[in-house]
Amino acid sequence: MREGAIVSDTKGLIIVHTGNGKGKTTAALGMALRAWGQGLRVLIVQFIKGNWKYGELKAAEALGPNFVIRQMGEGFVKDAKGEAAADHQSAANEAFEMAKAEIISGNWNLIILDEINYAVKFGLVSVEDVIALLDQKPEQMHVVLTGRDARDEIIEKADLVTEMREIKHPYKKGIKAQKGIEF
Amino acid sequence: MREGAIVSDTKGLIIVHTGNGKGKTTAALGMALRAWGQGLRVLIVQFIKGNWKYGELKAAEALGPNFVIRQMGEGFVKDAKGEAAADHQSAANEAFEMAKAEIISGNWNLIILDEINYAVKFGLVSVEDVIALLDQKPEQMHVVLTGRDARDEIIEKADLVTEMREIKHPYKKGIKAQKGIEF
Repeated sequence: MREGAIVSDTKGLIIVHTGNGKGKTTAALGMALRAWGQGLRVLIVQFIKGNWKYGELKAAEALGPNFVIRQMGEGFVKDAKGEAAADHQSAANEAFEMAKAEIISGNWNLIILDEINYAVKFGLVSVEDVIALLDQKPEQMHVVLTGRDARDEIIEKADLVTEMREIKHPYKKGIKAQKGIEF
Repeated sequence: MREGAIVSDTKGLIIVHTGNGKGKTTAALGMALRAWGQGLRVLIVQFIKGNWKYGELKAAEALGPNFVIRQMGEGFVKDAKGEAAADHQSAANEAFEMAKAEIISGNWNLIILDEINYAVKFGLVSVEDVIALLDQKPEQMHVVLTGRDARDEIIEKADLVTEMREIKHPYKKGIKAQKGIEF
């Protein structure tokens, strides 16, 4: 563990953002910025490629080595078959092993496993492996798991769970995705 | 309006984050970071002082003139009486007038009115004034309104509404607020 990376009075939280609404990844990004502003070291591991936003990648570049985003997954998996499905599985395995190594390393104060709930939902990562990983995390490290349909076992394990619920969505009004807001 | 501040293909959205859960302000902060990463100009106006987090203030300082946070309100108002209540009213008026001037100026791509729903709930800002202000906003400017118990009139006016619903909270497990996460 890097010396001084983690303050001694910290109780690391397990946090889940789930639900069908906007704001799961975005709220994790806001937490990342707040933590970074406090001088903490933040890693974001992205399990689904399609969820990456250009704005946050540019921001991460500007914020330097204490704010790192790693793009690991393939695109959305829902309809993948055959070779495409195998690619998704291999990308998810790689993402999970990388996340595991980083969590165990203790080099970060906050690690965001973005869309890991989605990877679990589609059978790319087992819920047992996620729970076992959370059991191994350093006591003072915060871990955020995002994605809709979080499994009960993960909710049970978490300290803080928020459901983002869609009340109204602009696509349904025929408004296109907006630069700086949606991407 | 500052030339070039706002791109021409933009349809400015009215976005509401409401509900009793965490993540309303934090998701707005994540949107702010994403927009900033895209080179957009972001202003956050805070209607409730107690909602300010040290981490985001430090981050805003580091991000420079395109990412501005203005602290306008007093602390939480729920039990304020007499002189304290008058102070709250005067702080809310000042915050609203400033927000109005900045919205009309067109100098920003994204303005976040943090906890304005709370100010409306406690009668410090009228819902009619908020609706009238939204009617005056430049077509291409995005405005985010946060705070629990958003009024129906505001939800009706919005393009995108997310309810952050508390499923599980660490304070209820006796865990204290954590640096970089809660503040």
